[in-house]
Amino acid sequence: MNSKIKTTLLVIVLMALSCKEKALEKYNDQSDSQGHPSLILTKSGVEKIKSQLGSIPIFDASLEATKDEIDAEIELGIDVPIPKDLSGGYTHARHKRNFLMLQKAGVLFQILDNEKYAVYVRDMLMAYAKLYPTLPVHPQTRSYARGKLFWQCLNDSNWLVYSSQAYDCIFEWLSKEERDTLENDLFIPFANFISEGNPQFFNRVHNHSTWGNVAVGMIALVMDHDELLEKALNGLKTDNLKVGMKDNDGGFIKVEGQKVGFLANVDEPFSPDGYYTEGPYYQRYAMYPFLVFAEALHHVKPELKIFEYKEGVLLKSVNTLINLSDADGEFFPLNDGQKGMSYYSKELVTAVDVAYHYGGNNPELLSIAKKQDRVLLNDSGLAVALGIKEGKDKPFDKKSINLSDGSNGDEGGVGILRSKGLELVFKYAGQGLSHGHYDKLSFSLYEEGEEVLQDYGLSRFVNIEQKGGGNYLKENKTWAKQTIAHNTITQNEVSHFGGKYEVGSKHHSELHFYDATNPQVQIVSAKETNAYPGTQLHRTLAIIDDEDFEKPFVVDIMNVASENKNQYDFPYYYFGQIMKTNFEYKVPSELKPLGKSIGYQHLWKEAEGMPSSDNVTFSWLNHGKFYTITTTSDATDNLILARIGAKDPEFNLRREPAFIIRRHAKSTTFASVIESHGNYSPISESAVNAYGSVSSLKVIYNNENYTAVQIENVNGKIKILVIANNDALNKNEHHLEIKNKEYKWVGSYTYITTIN
Amino acid sequence: MNSKIKTTLLVIVLMALSCKEKALEKYNDQSDSQGHPSLILTKSGVEKIKSQLGSIPIFDASLEATKDEIDAEIELGIDVPIPKDLSGGYTHARHKRNFLMLQKAGVLFQILDNEKYAVYVRDMLMAYAKLYPTLPVHPQTRSYARGKLFWQCLNDSNWLVYSSQAYDCIFEWLSKEERDTLENDLFIPFANFISEGNPQFFNRVHNHSTWGNVAVGMIALVMDHDELLEKALNGLKTDNLKVGMKDNDGGFIKVEGQKVGFLANVDEPFSPDGYYTEGPYYQRYAMYPFLVFAEALHHVKPELKIFEYKEGVLLKSVNTLINLSDADGEFFPLNDGQKGMSYYSKELVTAVDVAYHYGGNNPELLSIAKKQDRVLLNDSGLAVALGIKEGKDKPFDKKSINLSDGSNGDEGGVGILRSKGLELVFKYAGQGLSHGHYDKLSFSLYEEGEEVLQDYGLSRFVNIEQKGGGNYLKENKTWAKQTIAHNTITQNEVSHFGGKYEVGSKHHSELHFYDATNPQVQIVSAKETNAYPGTQLHRTLAIIDDEDFEKPFVVDIMNVASENKNQYDFPYYYFGQIMKTNFEYKVPSELKPLGKSIGYQHLWKEAEGMPSSDNVTFSWLNHGKFYTITTTSDATDNLILARIGAKDPEFNLRREPAFIIRRHAKSTTFASVIESHGNYSPISESAVNAYGSVSSLKVIYNNENYTAVQIENVNGKIKILVIANNDALNKNEHHLEIKNKEYKWVGSYTYITTIN
Repeated sequence: MNSKIKTTLLVIVLMALSCKEKALEKYNDQSDSQGHPSLILTKSGVEKIKSQLGSIPIFDASLEATKDEIDAEIELGIDVPIPKDLSGGYTHARHKRNFLMLQKAGVLFQILDNEKYAVYVRDMLMAYAKLYPTLPVHPQTRSYARGKLFWQCLNDSNWLVYSSQAYDCIFEWLSKEERDTLENDLFIPFANFISEGNPQFFNRVHNHSTWGNVAVGMIALVMDHDELLEKALNGLKTDNLKVGMKDNDGGFIKVEGQKVGFLANVDEPFSPDGYYTEGPYYQRYAMYPFLVFAEALHHVKPELKIFEYKEGVLLKSVNTLINLSDADGEFFPLNDGQKGMSYYSKELVTAVDVAYHYGGNNPELLSIAKKQDRVLLNDSGLAVALGIKEGKDKPFDKKSINLSDGSNGDEGGVGILRSKGLELVFKYAGQGLSHGHYDKLSFSLYEEGEEVLQDYGLSRFVNIEQKGGGNYLKENKTWAKQTIAHNTITQNEVSHFGGKYEVGSKHHSELHFYDATNPQVQIVSAKETNAYPGTQLHRTLAIIDDEDFEKPFVVDIMNVASENKNQYDFPYYYFGQIMKTNFEYKVPSELKPLGKSIGYQHLWKEAEGMPSSDNVTFSWLNHGKFYTITTTSDATDNLILARIGAKDPEFNLRREPAFIIRRHAKSTTFASVIESHGNYSPISESAVNAYGSVSSLKVIYNNENYTAVQIENVNGKIKILVIANNDALNKNEHHLEIKNKEYKWVGSYTYITTIN
Repeated sequence: MNSKIKTTLLVIVLMALSCKEKALEKYNDQSDSQGHPSLILTKSGVEKIKSQLGSIPIFDASLEATKDEIDAEIELGIDVPIPKDLSGGYTHARHKRNFLMLQKAGVLFQILDNEKYAVYVRDMLMAYAKLYPTLPVHPQTRSYARGKLFWQCLNDSNWLVYSSQAYDCIFEWLSKEERDTLENDLFIPFANFISEGNPQFFNRVHNHSTWGNVAVGMIALVMDHDELLEKALNGLKTDNLKVGMKDNDGGFIKVEGQKVGFLANVDEPFSPDGYYTEGPYYQRYAMYPFLVFAEALHHVKPELKIFEYKEGVLLKSVNTLINLSDADGEFFPLNDGQKGMSYYSKELVTAVDVAYHYGGNNPELLSIAKKQDRVLLNDSGLAVALGIKEGKDKPFDKKSINLSDGSNGDEGGVGILRSKGLELVFKYAGQGLSHGHYDKLSFSLYEEGEEVLQDYGLSRFVNIEQKGGGNYLKENKTWAKQTIAHNTITQNEVSHFGGKYEVGSKHHSELHFYDATNPQVQIVSAKETNAYPGTQLHRTLAIIDDEDFEKPFVVDIMNVASENKNQYDFPYYYFGQIMKTNFEYKVPSELKPLGKSIGYQHLWKEAEGMPSSDNVTFSWLNHGKFYTITTTSDATDNLILARIGAKDPEFNLRREPAFIIRRHAKSTTFASVIESHGNYSPISESAVNAYGSVSSLKVIYNNENYTAVQIENVNGKIKILVIANNDALNKNEHHLEIKNKEYKWVGSYTYITTIN
């Protein structure tokens, strides 16, 4: 009997069987001992879900929402267009929607036992199997690794990660012939194309290759294809890539001695604290493939103990990521990050559910899941829904946290100080791969989920076609990545490391100390010696909660040490309306850019002034709160009020303001206090505590060993903060005399109240 | 027995009596037949309140909140400082807080029978009685009518309106001697000072004088002082003011033949529809004195039938004012209005409660009161709280509404069109007294409570001392009031009426027609012939809800007729990020102001271009929604992208953008469609319907009798809107032939779908 006749007979036999029997028959027909589904759903999990349906509100609601969405989509019919557009365009959006629909329809088939979902998945996959072999690489040429369905392999990989799950769900329902068609015409060539066909994409440590590895790994697990699985886990054995090659974001493709594959993508970019070096926006993006593949490996290859890999970093990183969000759950936009992305995203629904289910049922995760108000339609989602139903959730209490960067946790980091609604994010990390910005020792400040001093984030409107196809805009390089776009020092109008990725990638800042043990004084301090050779930057940031002040305030001490005279620009990117300054400034009758390049060309100089005393104060109103910066000043400082938006021919940039202190000096200290105070309501029209409480700020001691600042408030109370610039972690007692007064303490700093 | 001995004896007797008896004794001792309290509280009302305490949640909560506030205030002690500051400064804020505390403490005394509140009121009033006779006029000289406690009589009047209520509450508890002291040293001289002492303040039609009249009227009612009451109701008989005098806002003080006093202030600025000519922000402000005095008159002088005065306009105006708010309850900032002021303000709590109680228990008002979540601690507050408790509230369904302006309703007006989340506010009103802006036929657009096309509002930070003492900033005149600051036509860089208040005050636009009977096509049309002599402006705005479009869209037809060639500037003040234009524009390397005066000096020209076809499209993203303006263009139009903020030496202005169409022509038509479409979420990063649906817009007919525009959508559906430029209210059938097609209809417009 030749295979064609065999098939025909089988089809006839099958047609005579009922649906259930048919599925069973087909399953028996194939050799996979594991059984399907086995990636994010399991046979036993499905049974458990079915037995609980109708009794767990949040699960039932998620299921209902998914059913409504897919039913509507099935009504509209299947469209698998010939690829054409960049992200934001129709064919891009359609293929993206297709893989999301496939995955959900597959799950519905498993849970609801309604064959229409299986038919929908099969028909759409068959349409892809028909289209795929005809496709050249995508006509849009922008990417260093063009896909076939999409303009970049990254999106093709997204497609495969989702579609693999759909295939897994209907695997046993399909005939062997159907499976053969799908695997031979679609899945295997697809997996080969994004791996062997694009080693520059697949064989890297990068969120792109994570997706690529996982895509190949997921389909390998469904097909029980060891060779593809090996490539997914450990990369291609050979790739003929040259060390130093770069992608179109400017990131390295090949680094000397770099391990590759999924496991390397867990090893390398994650620090032991679960911080992902590209930053939270991309961590969120990569979280989905990391966790669904881990879940699938856990089911199919339990012997790998993937959730214990690198001391359980995958699950730990979920907790880390939640800590990298503000009070509203929005991620801090470190490096390339689009503002507004939050733990309400679908990736975080996956992350939270998986971390809860496989990570010891942490009840704090339930409170996040409760806010998300939806769960995965699988075992982990069920566990979360049950936990919520049983009232096990506890508030996720975000405290101050210090997160190391680097594979071994020794390449700088990110410190987050939190106190009564204030959140301060201090970046002293590594470069962050190709999505890194040149902003060593920068910081941003939040209050109750609102930005007070901003990190600009990226310059991109993700998936909005009108804005450069939804891709990175050129202003991302000319503005967003540059040092001057951040709240840190720019020396001589040159970005850190000369704005050179090759140089920046070799270095990271060094933590000096971090101490949040005392809720009254939380403090983090780090040094950067490579951003400007010959200049050492040492910044210390503290949030001090002192009963002599209305609210906790920020102390910011930036010590700059250099033997050469330099120009230092030190901006604060505030928001809102200027209330008052204690210095005079002039506004020009015509606006000129602040400079010619590395971001300066994008800043309009709106005003300029000089200090009128030893302290400069600058206060503003935003979102009904008053803020005041008090900073020590030199008589020759230039005080610049600037606004983003110059040389912006397509209005890609947001017109937001900055207050910049410009100083010409060798070694110098920028010491500042930042206060949030009072409030204003446009309804009561009452301005409460509209003035700051700091009446004077002085650097009363400063040498290589110690820096001391004195803060006096309007009631004459004097506060002194002394920092050990060396031996900060020493357990010995520090002794220091300042103006005939002796200070003794153990530890990296001391904070005291004295009487005038 | 002389009066001193008499007093001493009385004091001794009183000390021997219990609190209750004491109060009674004292009451018997005085001759007022009406009894106290009688202004906003009544004896029977207080009894009713007491009998219900503890059973009406919203009333109990309001009482508790007030008690907590006043108890804390009493703890802090009384401070009656010597007046010194402008608004925003300490003494201003303190005296303001004092009168609010007085009023509340008085009410607490009545409701809770706890003498400590009476003592607090008495002691503070006595402190004022001691201070007041020593005071010269206020040291700040900015006002045309300086007060004594405050920099302007207006605030002194606020003080008296509130303090009168407090006095009323403890009237019977005080001894006659105490009352004599308060009346002779404080209240009578106070009332005389703000009336006879300041006729330029008291004898006007203006929100200032409303407060003045009511202040005098309230204290007159407490003291049963007929002479003062007569002044309050009908003004001073003589004032020696010169016709044409102006206040420091530029408003007229004396107008020929002007009636004065409280009743004139009801007659004049309110239209029969309850629209207050200064605009909703000041209507809100004046609402409090209007309604508390009305309430007091209703109690003490029921024979005046004040709530029936002018066909019940006072109560009707509450409904009007609520209709002048957006979806979040924030008032449209017509004329001088500070954004953010809303029906959550204390004035509107008063207004809603009073209107409910005395205006027929409209259940829709209860839903507003429910949102306010607090009630007055008096009879009307009790009625509202009971209504809510009994579940009588119904949603306040804001529909499209046309509000006439002018005492007789024949001086233009404001039309508000509402459709599925969109709210369009069209201003064709009178000048609006001294708070009026020069913006005939301007409009603003809102979607779901967010501004889409803004009215700038005022330039002032009310009560924020740092910003010009909290008073009007000079940019209010140089920018906010000028025509170019609004979404309407500026001709030849001159504001309407030459920016002359004297001229503007003589004129108003004329309603052409308003028709909101058909929810699919809601439309308003008005003409302005005086803003620019020799030029007629005729603007028609419609919101059309057509199933061939995703959402309702706005049609904007501005017909300009002139025999001279002029420059017309036609701005749209949008918010957010530009997405795409169909025209090329250049951004300059240096920014220059758009002009030299009447507001143009405050606009930076950020870019300039020319149309590339018959239609110009301009689209942007704001708050997650896409918007597109499609407008008919001439090849010689200049298309300007501008931003507010030039010549702003103290950063008083908000840096917000505008898209300006500049045309040189005699007669011309600016026809535009404004679409809201699709959405973008930074969480899903999915851009839905990011492009507008209009593919072409044409003016296909235009003469003195008719204007017709044709709108084609991307699916080839063609819509035609024809407006009758004359005879709009005619009941005869219109006949019109356009391109060999005949149109027949009855009414002011027709809207039809045709096939291409």
